[in-house]
Amino acid sequence: MTLDVVGLPEIEAVATRGLVFDAVRGALIAHAEGRAQMPAPIAMWFPEAEGDCHVKAGYLEGASHFGVKVASGFYRNAERGLPTNSGLMLVFDAGTGVPAAVLADEGWLTAWRTAAAGALITHALTPPDVDEVAVFGTGLQARLQGEWLADLRPLTRVRVCGRRPEAVRKLCAELGEAGLTAVPATAEEAAAAPCVITATASTSPVAPTEAFAAVHVTGIGTDLPGKAELPAGLFARATTIATDDHAQCLAHGDFGNAVRAGTVADDADVAAGLVLRDGVPNRAGLTIADLTGVGVADAAVATAVFRHLG
Amino acid sequence: MTLDVVGLPEIEAVATRGLVFDAVRGALIAHAEGRAQMPAPIAMWFPEAEGDCHVKAGYLEGASHFGVKVASGFYRNAERGLPTNSGLMLVFDAGTGVPAAVLADEGWLTAWRTAAAGALITHALTPPDVDEVAVFGTGLQARLQGEWLADLRPLTRVRVCGRRPEAVRKLCAELGEAGLTAVPATAEEAAAAPCVITATASTSPVAPTEAFAAVHVTGIGTDLPGKAELPAGLFARATTIATDDHAQCLAHGDFGNAVRAGTVADDADVAAGLVLRDGVPNRAGLTIADLTGVGVADAAVATAVFRHLG
Repeated sequence: MTLDVVGLPEIEAVATRGLVFDAVRGALIAHAEGRAQMPAPIAMWFPEAEGDCHVKAGYLEGASHFGVKVASGFYRNAERGLPTNSGLMLVFDAGTGVPAAVLADEGWLTAWRTAAAGALITHALTPPDVDEVAVFGTGLQARLQGEWLADLRPLTRVRVCGRRPEAVRKLCAELGEAGLTAVPATAEEAAAAPCVITATASTSPVAPTEAFAAVHVTGIGTDLPGKAELPAGLFARATTIATDDHAQCLAHGDFGNAVRAGTVADDADVAAGLVLRDGVPNRAGLTIADLTGVGVADAAVATAVFRHLG
Repeated sequence: MTLDVVGLPEIEAVATRGLVFDAVRGALIAHAEGRAQMPAPIAMWFPEAEGDCHVKAGYLEGASHFGVKVASGFYRNAERGLPTNSGLMLVFDAGTGVPAAVLADEGWLTAWRTAAAGALITHALTPPDVDEVAVFGTGLQARLQGEWLADLRPLTRVRVCGRRPEAVRKLCAELGEAGLTAVPATAEEAAAAPCVITATASTSPVAPTEAFAAVHVTGIGTDLPGKAELPAGLFARATTIATDDHAQCLAHGDFGNAVRAGTVADDADVAAGLVLRDGVPNRAGLTIADLTGVGVADAAVATAVFRHLG
């Protein structure tokens, strides 16, 4: 058996934003329409190393390949000069089960598909005239959410809220290099923005319900049990709640946290893929998107990259 | 990131039966003692290709690495000259989450750890003077179960039962080459052997309850939902039922099938690892082992192989 390991430079060469946007949009819509297999993910914890690892898999019916993704976050890696996130994606032939390629993407395809899913659903749910957003979080994903959303609509200003002023300044500078005007903001100032995106590893809400004046909020950080970004009370005000996967968001998303807090019914959500396909069911008032990251998006992106490799 | 893909020849050079036996025994005991993480596996189905794929993961507390295994069975591959089973194992650093190696084992490590688990528990539960076994099934795993058990105790005769006479003759010849005396047997003759091992892809019992005269039966083929090898009634006669994982065997093992048929209580099993550690709780009458294949064994074998590579 010959098994190709595809390194990051080769992956970067083909994984354009357009390719990732298309793959993620298609995957979310297929998933919403029941045309995809997406088993419950595997999660493991490594408390001594402050690490977690999850495995996600997916298959879009009729596709040539299926994908399995392993992604880890080890939060003390920075101390030793290693990236926090790593992982890889595996592509398998859906007709024979034979491994086709190992995409040694160092976690980047996960980062990009998360950026794409966030930007797509934020753009779909936010009124067209909104050109100012706030991001909670100062990590890679906070930056990507700003940059990828700016690909879909013009942004005049990005408010950046984080715990460490140095990290906030760094992210503002990075967003500036990407052509965006970014300014530091307190939690109150950020929550008061018309569109809010949370991209943190938080285990408690980033701001209290009453601080939010947004017409749209996207939460993308509750990718594993124990995490929380949005206050439960916020969901009581929402007219539309979009989830990337009903079961996952119920299990460990902010939507599930709100359901357990009793502020929203457990069937109050609509599939993000249906919003992308059909538009917004109800844009009056507040819309919320709760994204936990779906294996079908991983599989679709990995397959698309694999098929575009020379 | 440099990521080594280790091919089968390199793996074969270090994965001795001794290494695999030790790793699997240690993994089953650690799992039984609660010293391992083993999340529920991922399963996917590809009906058009008669294929299935499962992903298993495991981590033994304190180990240097953890493992993720992808294994597929595509049952029309033989028509096109491809092996039915394929897959690979991934080894990750448990301190950083960084991928350490891809073991492109073409499914062999799964085959060997399954052989080891079956032989270990069959040997532990079968009275020492029993030197004749029957195997149901004529595939690779039926052969390995005979060969690996013969490493642990002398076997004077192996009865082979399968649906296709040609496959039965082939397996008898292969076992003969491995130094064993093997003879074709009907289902009745096989079930009447003192020790029976089932290694089939069957979805219904291989023989009726009343046909079994064995003092020990090991079932290893119910690795995915929908499969069945042992009749539910057999469990009513068992004095000891060993499972490699209580939840998995309840979910899709023959033990679970028997529980749902009402012939045995859902807490009637003992962990296989405890039998390996402490010996047999009760050898009077019939003992049964229900093995569904555990991710901790995959992780332990993959880690052991990785650490022994040059």
